[in-house]
Amino acid sequence: MTIKAAIVGAAGFAGIELVRLLVQHPSFELIAMTSDAYAGEPVASVYPAFAGSVDLAFSATADAPLADADVVFLAVPHTVALKHAPDLVAAGVAVIDLSADFRLKDPEAYAAYYGVAHTAPDLLAEAAFGQPELFPEDLARVRQRHAAGRGVLVACAGCYPTATSLAAAPVLRSGWGAPSGLVVVDAISGITGAGKKASERTHFCFANDNVEAYGLVSHRHTPEIEQILGIEGRLVFTPHLAPLNRGLLSTVTIPLAGEKAGVSSADAEELYRTFYDGCTFVEVLAEGQQPRTASVAGTNRAQVGVAYNPRVHAVVATCAIDNLCKGAAGQAVQCANIVFGLAEGAGLASLALPI
Amino acid sequence: MTIKAAIVGAAGFAGIELVRLLVQHPSFELIAMTSDAYAGEPVASVYPAFAGSVDLAFSATADAPLADADVVFLAVPHTVALKHAPDLVAAGVAVIDLSADFRLKDPEAYAAYYGVAHTAPDLLAEAAFGQPELFPEDLARVRQRHAAGRGVLVACAGCYPTATSLAAAPVLRSGWGAPSGLVVVDAISGITGAGKKASERTHFCFANDNVEAYGLVSHRHTPEIEQILGIEGRLVFTPHLAPLNRGLLSTVTIPLAGEKAGVSSADAEELYRTFYDGCTFVEVLAEGQQPRTASVAGTNRAQVGVAYNPRVHAVVATCAIDNLCKGAAGQAVQCANIVFGLAEGAGLASLALPI
Amino acid sequence: MTIKAAIVGAAGFAGIELVRLLVQHPSFELIAMTSDAYAGEPVASVYPAFAGSVDLAFSATADAPLADADVVFLAVPHTVALKHAPDLVAAGVAVIDLSADFRLKDPEAYAAYYGVAHTAPDLLAEAAFGQPELFPEDLARVRQRHAAGRGVLVACAGCYPTATSLAAAPVLRSGWGAPSGLVVVDAISGITGAGKKASERTHFCFANDNVEAYGLVSHRHTPEIEQILGIEGRLVFTPHLAPLNRGLLSTVTIPLAGEKAGVSSADAEELYRTFYDGCTFVEVLAEGQQPRTASVAGTNRAQVGVAYNPRVHAVVATCAIDNLCKGAAGQAVQCANIVFGLAEGAGLASLALPI
Amino acid sequence: MTIKAAIVGAAGFAGIELVRLLVQHPSFELIAMTSDAYAGEPVASVYPAFAGSVDLAFSATADAPLADADVVFLAVPHTVALKHAPDLVAAGVAVIDLSADFRLKDPEAYAAYYGVAHTAPDLLAEAAFGQPELFPEDLARVRQRHAAGRGVLVACAGCYPTATSLAAAPVLRSGWGAPSGLVVVDAISGITGAGKKASERTHFCFANDNVEAYGLVSHRHTPEIEQILGIEGRLVFTPHLAPLNRGLLSTVTIPLAGEKAGVSSADAEELYRTFYDGCTFVEVLAEGQQPRTASVAGTNRAQVGVAYNPRVHAVVATCAIDNLCKGAAGQAVQCANIVFGLAEGAGLASLALPI
Repeated sequence: MTIKAAIVGAAGFAGIELVRLLVQHPSFELIAMTSDAYAGEPVASVYPAFAGSVDLAFSATADAPLADADVVFLAVPHTVALKHAPDLVAAGVAVIDLSADFRLKDPEAYAAYYGVAHTAPDLLAEAAFGQPELFPEDLARVRQRHAAGRGVLVACAGCYPTATSLAAAPVLRSGWGAPSGLVVVDAISGITGAGKKASERTHFCFANDNVEAYGLVSHRHTPEIEQILGIEGRLVFTPHLAPLNRGLLSTVTIPLAGEKAGVSSADAEELYRTFYDGCTFVEVLAEGQQPRTASVAGTNRAQVGVAYNPRVHAVVATCAIDNLCKGAAGQAVQCANIVFGLAEGAGLASLALPI
Repeated sequence: MTIKAAIVGAAGFAGIELVRLLVQHPSFELIAMTSDAYAGEPVASVYPAFAGSVDLAFSATADAPLADADVVFLAVPHTVALKHAPDLVAAGVAVIDLSADFRLKDPEAYAAYYGVAHTAPDLLAEAAFGQPELFPEDLARVRQRHAAGRGVLVACAGCYPTATSLAAAPVLRSGWGAPSGLVVVDAISGITGAGKKASERTHFCFANDNVEAYGLVSHRHTPEIEQILGIEGRLVFTPHLAPLNRGLLSTVTIPLAGEKAGVSSADAEELYRTFYDGCTFVEVLAEGQQPRTASVAGTNRAQVGVAYNPRVHAVVATCAIDNLCKGAAGQAVQCANIVFGLAEGAGLASLALPI
Repeated sequence: MTIKAAIVGAAGFAGIELVRLLVQHPSFELIAMTSDAYAGEPVASVYPAFAGSVDLAFSATADAPLADADVVFLAVPHTVALKHAPDLVAAGVAVIDLSADFRLKDPEAYAAYYGVAHTAPDLLAEAAFGQPELFPEDLARVRQRHAAGRGVLVACAGCYPTATSLAAAPVLRSGWGAPSGLVVVDAISGITGAGKKASERTHFCFANDNVEAYGLVSHRHTPEIEQILGIEGRLVFTPHLAPLNRGLLSTVTIPLAGEKAGVSSADAEELYRTFYDGCTFVEVLAEGQQPRTASVAGTNRAQVGVAYNPRVHAVVATCAIDNLCKGAAGQAVQCANIVFGLAEGAGLASLALPI
Repeated sequence: MTIKAAIVGAAGFAGIELVRLLVQHPSFELIAMTSDAYAGEPVASVYPAFAGSVDLAFSATADAPLADADVVFLAVPHTVALKHAPDLVAAGVAVIDLSADFRLKDPEAYAAYYGVAHTAPDLLAEAAFGQPELFPEDLARVRQRHAAGRGVLVACAGCYPTATSLAAAPVLRSGWGAPSGLVVVDAISGITGAGKKASERTHFCFANDNVEAYGLVSHRHTPEIEQILGIEGRLVFTPHLAPLNRGLLSTVTIPLAGEKAGVSSADAEELYRTFYDGCTFVEVLAEGQQPRTASVAGTNRAQVGVAYNPRVHAVVATCAIDNLCKGAAGQAVQCANIVFGLAEGAGLASLALPI
């Protein structure tokens, strides 16, 4: 089976990662890769790592035969997906949206955090949330709908929400109970998270040899994380930048209500192993080991570590992903695989570099 | 006035940073720099950045005239300071200890976290805690004692405790009150924090392009931070490594008890500015700005940022220092300056590199 | 067809890269991966990037069933291949040697540069030189011999010689003639080139933010490069280290004898394109473009750029490779593919990361 | 003595490094720092490393009292110095020009390489070349002229020419004779060399983990190096970028005419030590040691290594500098010190960071 795929916004960092994955995918065939800034230019002239390997060119979005595609990946800024998605879904296309436009189930929250009204609340209501390990039924529902010939939309989780929820969900969804106070998330991203646009923040000489926090108090991923984990109004989320290209580490501290008599880090590890049993892309590390972002760079994998702190009755869990892959393009392909009934890991199996 | 200074453990990263500072200091003169591993070797052969600039050699500790020094800096692993300090203090020397041996006021806590009994509890009781911005009276007391001709000991704060306490102290010591739940500290250190010893963890190819957490649940800086801030039993501290040489960023989340009616980030900034008024080395940043480790590398400065999160009634404060300088050798020199009645910033005034 | 493969020295950087490639190879099956230092340990405990992906363990070399393998890769220091290779070849095995033991055709040169006598001159005489783009007939000869049921040995080119010869061969083998003076090669390698052993040189804090030359005058790759290019006694080779994990850039300056009337950089580019026509892994860049090591990291590809300098009648050519892949493990797999009659690029097709 | 100093172009990387040096200089007082892009903005808002340390603001060039200054540093692009310098010199100011406008003694060469006619050939003829170790008489001449009350201009050497000439001059100016063929220079610069402007080349994600050559064949520093060394028409110069902020390493290969009977690397070292005897900022390393850019970062020092290759009768010499300091702002201050009769090293004495 060859599935016709298009990417809108293919020249950005998430978009070009989609190109990398789809060019090598056994079932998808790229019929269009749009970039209004680079329309007509060969991909390899913008991303020279593809010289000699990828002989394709960007096209203007207006010229791209999006409605002819079976699946359209939207790697665009928020509000742009709102423009494209409704018509494509109406045309029967499976839309895999990497933007934030359809992630927040509450249109009011969208308006509050993104500063614009949500113009497609009906589509929002029927969209699946694209985090396959935590919302498999949501994707299964959409897959059935698509199998019945209908257009569908998957709103892929953001990079910070993906890593954070993989770290926190096992304990929050288990009998270990709700947190007793605030859930604190400090996360660190590589500089690809700041996007392709050249700026002072992304200038090598300012980003190198430096770590810093940013987006305190009001980062837009806050309500998304709260929604995924069901901890509305209890999250403090602080993102940081560190000098690496790819990689995102989320460290989640969850205070537990009451002593867990006899609970240990080994119990926490066991809880996590059971929770992620059968999940292709999540590796729970042995007690005492910690995820390394380098270990997942270039892959769709997540590594998760967990420890129980008996002194203060809190769980500290960490998750490392590649923000461009499992945090964006890889998860999008994973979702598309599910929607089309392919193996969940199709085209996503490559090993990490050992060093 | 020339003050005779010696460094025990001068070849490690904190030790060699002491060499850098003391060689350029207007009042201290180095009479001995010990390293048992490199005894007899020129400093510049171990640290080639000093070729042509520093014409000194390491000596064996047993051969060094430590008792002839006015001040001895101990840049040694824990337990080693316990061996040297009592005799030096008895001999009238001002001992500036960079190790952890005299930081925890409770000898039982020392035994619990460091695995050995404390063998000098009397000296521990009279030692000053070397964090000048937060314990100025402690250093003033020791300065008087030293001025009266007595030996003294200053136990310099550790790197994580220094940055963390500078970030958290203003709110915890103010009328904003005690935290309502756990105080969560996630801190990120450059690789010099892992020490000079070559290992897999410090190998370039494993540390580069990577961030990871380590020492979860039981890092030895936990009781030190709790002691400084007076939050015993309420701290969750998780350190991380990032690919830079120097730099440490501590992000502290403090949930506040009850709503702070009308409180804003601007109020928090004002609180911090007042608290650090007159402190030579602490810079409170304007609301919305965040400390960058690159901005303090190579200096004894700390940059502090603070925000109030009204949605969850929490303060998030961050502090960036150079872990080897303000987090170790620079703070030690700052303490020594105070003990000897010099200007607090003597020998510590150099500007950061702008890029 | 499943070909049984073994790796001797699988825990080093070249060895583990072989593991990565062979685990994903469609035709080879790993039956042994030896490491005397880590015998019995899971691969993933030494290289945590393989956690959850590679469920194999290292074994002691003495215990490994090397003679049962169809192909044995020797990722060992020089002199160690000399110990293993003769018996394996005698047993009919195809030996792919990544060490330097069988690269220099002249046993005297081996003795001079490596300080030990060559103990297998007969095998040396019949060994193929493993640089497929430049010595295809050599590999074809060995393939026939192997197809006839005989053991064979391929001595894979070193990392610096591979990049340097790919940059220089087209002009030196063409009618553009021999160089008029010295050929000067300055090459820059990532830190993986210094090996897995933790040392001061490979400590993050010494390697980061630094470039330096090393091995001046007498680097062991000098005679190997001269042999490949046929420029005995005319090469000055200076290697450098730069702060990246993977990547090697060789810049070759070739003074030409006499003016090349009417010759231009465009002619040089055309010469190179013709020379590498049909080579799967070599990409000649358009005039004015330069190879980037980041563009080939993790792949078996080489990017080559060339310019003609009419002012001084010299060619400057550059080649970027991944020192661990095309410069070691990838080229070894490429050679093995040829020996076994597989597609030259089998198992080596993955795209570079775009960023 | 307080000398009034102004900087034109103070917000660029060389300009801000001048700010760092002059703010800490014992004899110069900054009366103006111009930046048309950031006029009116505090320095610390553009370079946050100066927050709390430098309480100055940029001003518009047109508003700055340049003629009131005793010394004006021009940290501007080429052609801009041509506009400012003649009037300032006529007004009696000592102009220290960091641009390329007055480096090439031949106005035709300037026109050929920079694409515009030289509009101040008289001033060009009387300008001193600002490379104090190699042209001390030139600076002494200008100093006398300035002491006599005249305006003067010093054209500071470029970054690549500084490191390259320090590496090559001892052998080329000695009895070891002229080179027998082409002198080949491959040099590696940190990313500050590409300037403050945010672009794809300077984006962290493209510069990180990468080395590449650029400016092949026709880099503008070529004629400048040839002029300094007196090797017109014999130089091949290829610059490279590596992922570090500050640092420049130049590797120079000089083929010698005829055998140097009995000459050794030790002789070369001795030649270099004699040549640089008395030079404050140049450190000749012992045979077998190599300069490290990290060892000179943030300082005005140069480290030089040299080896003689008897196999091919060539000298390979290397020199490491900080491209922003000894390669730009530091050397400019060194020149200004000389012009004003100060100690050559005034304000330039700080030690390198040991790690």
